[in-house]
Amino acid sequence: MNNFTFYSPTYFVFGKDEESKTGKYVKRFGGKKVLIHYGGGSVVRSGLLDRVKASLEEEGISFIELGGVKPNPRSGLVYEGIRLCREEKVDFILAVGGGSTIDSSKAIAAGTVYDGDFWDFYMGKPITEALPVATVLTIAAAGSEGSPDSVITKEEGMLKRGASGEALRPVFSILNPALTQTLPREQTAAGVADIMAHLFERYFTNTKEVEVTDRVIEGLLLTMIQEAPKVIKDPDNYEARANIMWAGMMAHNNCCGVGRDQDWASHGIEHELSALYDCAHGAGLAAVFPAWMEYTMKQDVMRFAQLATRVWGCSMNFQNPEITAKAGIDALRVFFKKLGLPLTMAELGGKEEDIPYLAHTACYGNGKKGTVGRFVELKEEDVANIYRLMR
Amino acid sequence: MNNFTFYSPTYFVFGKDEESKTGKYVKRFGGKKVLIHYGGGSVVRSGLLDRVKASLEEEGISFIELGGVKPNPRSGLVYEGIRLCREEKVDFILAVGGGSTIDSSKAIAAGTVYDGDFWDFYMGKPITEALPVATVLTIAAAGSEGSPDSVITKEEGMLKRGASGEALRPVFSILNPALTQTLPREQTAAGVADIMAHLFERYFTNTKEVEVTDRVIEGLLLTMIQEAPKVIKDPDNYEARANIMWAGMMAHNNCCGVGRDQDWASHGIEHELSALYDCAHGAGLAAVFPAWMEYTMKQDVMRFAQLATRVWGCSMNFQNPEITAKAGIDALRVFFKKLGLPLTMAELGGKEEDIPYLAHTACYGNGKKGTVGRFVELKEEDVANIYRLMR
Repeated sequence: MNNFTFYSPTYFVFGKDEESKTGKYVKRFGGKKVLIHYGGGSVVRSGLLDRVKASLEEEGISFIELGGVKPNPRSGLVYEGIRLCREEKVDFILAVGGGSTIDSSKAIAAGTVYDGDFWDFYMGKPITEALPVATVLTIAAAGSEGSPDSVITKEEGMLKRGASGEALRPVFSILNPALTQTLPREQTAAGVADIMAHLFERYFTNTKEVEVTDRVIEGLLLTMIQEAPKVIKDPDNYEARANIMWAGMMAHNNCCGVGRDQDWASHGIEHELSALYDCAHGAGLAAVFPAWMEYTMKQDVMRFAQLATRVWGCSMNFQNPEITAKAGIDALRVFFKKLGLPLTMAELGGKEEDIPYLAHTACYGNGKKGTVGRFVELKEEDVANIYRLMR
Repeated sequence: MNNFTFYSPTYFVFGKDEESKTGKYVKRFGGKKVLIHYGGGSVVRSGLLDRVKASLEEEGISFIELGGVKPNPRSGLVYEGIRLCREEKVDFILAVGGGSTIDSSKAIAAGTVYDGDFWDFYMGKPITEALPVATVLTIAAAGSEGSPDSVITKEEGMLKRGASGEALRPVFSILNPALTQTLPREQTAAGVADIMAHLFERYFTNTKEVEVTDRVIEGLLLTMIQEAPKVIKDPDNYEARANIMWAGMMAHNNCCGVGRDQDWASHGIEHELSALYDCAHGAGLAAVFPAWMEYTMKQDVMRFAQLATRVWGCSMNFQNPEITAKAGIDALRVFFKKLGLPLTMAELGGKEEDIPYLAHTACYGNGKKGTVGRFVELKEEDVANIYRLMR
């Protein structure tokens, strides 16, 4: 196991109706002038935004609003948020929404207290401070409610890049599984794929002797495999929503990723797809991961066989472990398919002729040095081959 | 799933040689005048205490010392620590040791800033503030390095009682698995039993639909079952020590206990044993748990069968699940036995004739109302029967 540090100081408030306590928690964590940041649509229609505002008003906390966050959140709105926070002397950002809203909020939080261009952070500049961010989560997916990460798309060139820093961990996150019951089926499914992808990115490692994190990752995957079909069948299944929501947090606050190298090639490969075609990140990951697995399986057949037997319940073929390893990948494809997730470039709106551009950007885009991934260091040609396997 | 809050803000620093950074972290977390609290013996002999002191000196941090913590830490030393901290205007407590040292440090931390008798907290008074506590951990067992809990034994009457409060969560904890390599075999084994017991206390619940926490608990148990025999065979196995150490933290910071009722009868039943006979807490738990399981199995046979199949690899007997459930309990007994742990009252130094007293104190001791446990609410007679099953 590698040496590591782990720090997850977010205060999680989980369960039915807990969003009614938002104002109380903002007060407790020192917010006096709040920017409420959100997307639009369902947060407004469902009355959630009004409930959150009422809760702030009850505590006498003043606030301003900025809606309009889109999936694959853009730099333009971040700049607007930063300007607004400075003008209005905002001291606390409250994200009401999913991963995109939270990531946009984190960018605004870091950018507001920084003299330069916030995009510097997404080009690799370390983040040392930010306004406090809190969240009221509306979808189990990105894990941004407990992570130090943010992904933003720069409109010029549609470049999708990530930044990370302990200062971006939310100070509190309110997770009410009931809020996810109204999600459209495809968003629920994309969220499931996103959570499972966060687990796979950590699972595929060359670090040896990491049984504890292997086992926790496997436990969270087993949870997803049992619970996800329930919510696709019955969106109102609160208990299944609750299990998925906590699994989504644990999948990405890094408690199960510590002490081991992690891969993250598939996220890089997917980011190019959602940047160019504006598909849902989770949907893109559902298509990328089985292809990535097929392509990299030879790196450590026994690790793939372990996943297949422990998680997918495949029988171990002791004569030919490759058969077991492959059966696990097939099981993943079948599972994603049953959830209605895309498995091909075409389903994502992608085109064969874009592959050279996509592969090049994945490997040489801003700040990258010609390869992606750590489990296998993939070159441009490898990435192109993986895109071609998505069919 | 029940509504819950989860807050684990401890900064964990994990790996080889990390204790050399103790001073750096004390500084980062604002310590200026430190009480170093420890037991004695190995911490001194191994040179660990000197390394920690050197690291504080390097950062120019002044400190005083208080050694002498014993297993099942006593109130007498806590009073001495409180007096010392007040006299010397200590603002930070650094525990160098295992669960006993950390628990004693937490008691001192809460008591120093409280006008009344610190024992009030162990009689149920809520803890609202405490000096910051940090730890350099030397045994994987109690999980106190990441928990808000502390257990102290009051010398008058040998009453062993727990207190809990978010203010008691360590601000940082340094976990170097190599420090545990020198532990005597029986302490290592007792630590393993303690960690597994923390998982069992959370696993046995009447809360339904808690797959995510079930699966994480099972994953941590599977880790213990694979890794513990390795360290009994080869105490110097760093990798196995590392897996156990992180499992020990995750077993008790409550990330796998949230949203579900927990039991804790076995801890109560054991506390009477270690208070009266001064046996190791983990050793006591190894003897109590299989007996408790046998006694309560009928409450939810399918939960016991789930544990037996998922964790112990027992075949499910679909005609008679009780047989599977029982096979899981047998497997636990065999496992503890192989680790050299005690399974009987006699091995713990206990006597049949003490059982009425033990059972009475477990149910009616300070602050208790006649029953222990939530999975099954055990009365005095039940507890006596469980003690009798420990043979």
